[in-house]
Amino acid sequence: MAEPLFFMIKISATDNKARCGEIKTAHGTFQTPTFMPVGTGGAVKALTSSDLEECGVQIILGNTYHLYLRPGAEIIKKMGGLAKFTSWNKPTLTDSGGFQIFSLKEISQVTADGVEFQSHHDGSKHFFSPEKAIQVQHEIGADIIMQLDECVPYPVNENKAAIAADRTYQWGRRCLEEHNRLKASPKTDTALFGIVQGSVYPKLRRQSAEQTVSLCFDGNAIGGLSVGESKREMEEMLALTIELLPKDKPRYLMGVGYPEDILMAVSYGIDMFDCVLPTRNARTGSVFTATGPLVYRNAEYAADERPLDESCSCKVCQRYSRGYLRHLYNQSEITAMVLASYHSTYFYQQFVRNIGESIEASRFADFKKAFLEKYNSDRES
Amino acid sequence: MAEPLFFMIKISATDNKARCGEIKTAHGTFQTPTFMPVGTGGAVKALTSSDLEECGVQIILGNTYHLYLRPGAEIIKKMGGLAKFTSWNKPTLTDSGGFQIFSLKEISQVTADGVEFQSHHDGSKHFFSPEKAIQVQHEIGADIIMQLDECVPYPVNENKAAIAADRTYQWGRRCLEEHNRLKASPKTDTALFGIVQGSVYPKLRRQSAEQTVSLCFDGNAIGGLSVGESKREMEEMLALTIELLPKDKPRYLMGVGYPEDILMAVSYGIDMFDCVLPTRNARTGSVFTATGPLVYRNAEYAADERPLDESCSCKVCQRYSRGYLRHLYNQSEITAMVLASYHSTYFYQQFVRNIGESIEASRFADFKKAFLEKYNSDRES
Repeated sequence: MAEPLFFMIKISATDNKARCGEIKTAHGTFQTPTFMPVGTGGAVKALTSSDLEECGVQIILGNTYHLYLRPGAEIIKKMGGLAKFTSWNKPTLTDSGGFQIFSLKEISQVTADGVEFQSHHDGSKHFFSPEKAIQVQHEIGADIIMQLDECVPYPVNENKAAIAADRTYQWGRRCLEEHNRLKASPKTDTALFGIVQGSVYPKLRRQSAEQTVSLCFDGNAIGGLSVGESKREMEEMLALTIELLPKDKPRYLMGVGYPEDILMAVSYGIDMFDCVLPTRNARTGSVFTATGPLVYRNAEYAADERPLDESCSCKVCQRYSRGYLRHLYNQSEITAMVLASYHSTYFYQQFVRNIGESIEASRFADFKKAFLEKYNSDRES
Repeated sequence: MAEPLFFMIKISATDNKARCGEIKTAHGTFQTPTFMPVGTGGAVKALTSSDLEECGVQIILGNTYHLYLRPGAEIIKKMGGLAKFTSWNKPTLTDSGGFQIFSLKEISQVTADGVEFQSHHDGSKHFFSPEKAIQVQHEIGADIIMQLDECVPYPVNENKAAIAADRTYQWGRRCLEEHNRLKASPKTDTALFGIVQGSVYPKLRRQSAEQTVSLCFDGNAIGGLSVGESKREMEEMLALTIELLPKDKPRYLMGVGYPEDILMAVSYGIDMFDCVLPTRNARTGSVFTATGPLVYRNAEYAADERPLDESCSCKVCQRYSRGYLRHLYNQSEITAMVLASYHSTYFYQQFVRNIGESIEASRFADFKKAFLEKYNSDRES
C-alpha cells in the first residue's frame, strides 16, 4: 500500500487511555479529540461556513449519498472539491453513503457486489459497488473518505451480523484497492478509513477489528454503534474493539453522540466523533447546555430573560434570551433554528476543546467527573 | 395635542423634491430615506439581530397582528418592549394590525367600531377597536406606531373606497385620543403616524390626506398602494397625496417595494419604506443585485463560481458562489435562505444609503438614472 503523502495523526499527550493531538490533512490541521458537525448536503443545517468558523469547528462531515444525488459529484469536482464548493476551505470527511442507503430499507437492495438504491428525490435507480463509493468520494474530494460498509440495524441476529461484517471486510479490500489506484494519479493526500462492524457480538467485533486492521487503512472507524443498543453494550463493544486498533492511526467512533457518550469514548482513546444531535435537536426545540439539555421550546421559558446557557460565551448566549428563542420557535421562525443550532454547535466545540486541554494537563478524569456532575445537576434536583 | 418629547425628523439636504436627513427616536436615530426590513413576528425571517446590524439596518418593522397573537403584547411588555425583547435595541415601528386582519377576508368582519377577526393559529376570536390597536402597540412598545386604518383591495369601487377612507379618518381621531391619553402617563416618546387611504381615486386621496394632516400626527403614511394597481396609478396617487403632507414631518410609503418604486417615491419626497420583498424573494430563490433580480435557484447557475452580485461587498458575496447557493436552495437547506436573505437585506440598505448620499451631493437624478440603467441592463441585453 502506498504511504500517505501528508495525512497523519500526532498524539501530543495521553492521560490513561485518553489521548489528544492533531491530525494533518491537505486542507489543514485539526485538533483531537474532535467533533465533526454533520453537513449533510454541503451545509450544516441552518448554519453558514462563517458560523462554523466562529464556533471553532475544525472539520465537517458531508454525506456522500446526498452529495452524489445533489448536486452530483461531477459538479463538486468542477467547483474545486467539497471544501472549496462550500467555501469552508478547511478539512472535510465524507462517509461512504452506506449508512443512508441502508436506512432506505424499502428502496435499497444489497448483494455481495454492492448496493442498489433509489433516489429519495425522484426514484431514479443507482448502484454503489465498493469501487464506485470510492470513485464518487474521490470526485467529491474530502480529505478523509470512508470505505463502503454494511450497517445492520439493532437488534440483529448473529448470523446476519456475521454476514454483514464479512461483507464489510471484503468491500474494505476492494475500496482500498480502488483508492490506491485513484490516489496514485494524480497524486492526492486523501486518507481512507476502514470500518469495524459486528453489532453487539464480541466475537464478530474482534474478528472485524482484526480484519480491518490487517488492511492498513489510514485510520480506523467503529461503526454500527449508537443504533439502539444500550449504553452498556455500546461501551463493551467500544472497549474490546479499540484495544485491537493501532495507536498510531486516528480512531473514529461514527455517529456518536451525547456528551456523556463522548466522554466515555474519549476515556478509551477515541479521537474523532460526528453526530447530527446538536443541530437536529436545536431545530426541534432543545439545546445542549453545561447543566444538561434545555427544551427551550417549553412554555415555562416564555418570559425567561436568561440566555440558553448561563455559562456559555457564544454570541447567542451573549445576546438573546430564552424567552425570545422560545417565541421564535413557537412562531416557526427560521431564526430560532439558526440561533439554537449556533449555540449547540459552539457548545460541542467548546466541550471537545476542554476535553483536549484536560488530557494535555493530565486531569481528564477530574474534568469528566466535574462536567457530568454539572451536566446532570438539573435532572437530579 | 401634546408635543412629542423627543421624536423628530431633521432634513439635512434636499434635491428637488427628494430629501435626506435623520429621524430621532427613543431608541436612537436612523438616517432617511430608510428601508425597514419586515420582522413579522419579532425577527426578520432567517436573519438574526447581528445580521441586521451587519447589513446596516437602522429600523425594523414588527407586525402587531402577529405579535399580539404570539407571544402576546403583555409578554413583550414584561420583557422590556419590542427592541429589548428581540435584542435589537434600536428603533422599531409597528403597523396597526389592520393590513394583516383585512387580508384574512373570510375570518374578519369590519364595523364602524373596529374589526373582529379570528386567529390564524387557533381560530380564537379577537376584536381591535382603534383604541385597542393603540393599547396593544403601546404595550409592544415600538418607537413609531400606526393608526388603525381600513385597507381596501384593488380594484374597489369609489363608494367602498370612500367609506373605508372616511372610516380611516374616524379611527385616526380615536387612535390619536387614546395615544395621547396613554403617552401622558407614564410619559413616553412613542410617535403615532396617521395613514392616508383613498385607493386610486384622486378626490378621495386628497380628502383623506387633508383629513389626516388636520389631525396633526407625528408623521404621515400613505397606505393602500402597491396592492395591485399599475405603476402609473401608484405614482399619480403618490404625487398628488404627498403635495398635501407637511414637510416637517416624516412621510412613509407603506409596503413599497421594488428598487425602481423606491427611486420614484424618493423623487417625490418619501422618507420611509418597508417591504417583505427582499427577504421573501430570497427565501423563494431570487435575490436583488445591481444588475437586476437574479433567480439563483435556476439550473444555469449550478456550476457558476461568481458571487450572487459581482459588485456587492457583503459577506455572502465575498465568500459564496451562485453554484453553492443554487445547490443549497435545491436541497431545501435553511442555509440558502439565510445567505440569500442576508445579501438582499444588505443590498437594500446599501441602496438607500447611496440614495441618501446622492441627495446630500445634489446628484440624485444622476444616481437614479445610472442605477436604473445598470439594474435593467441584463433584461435589455
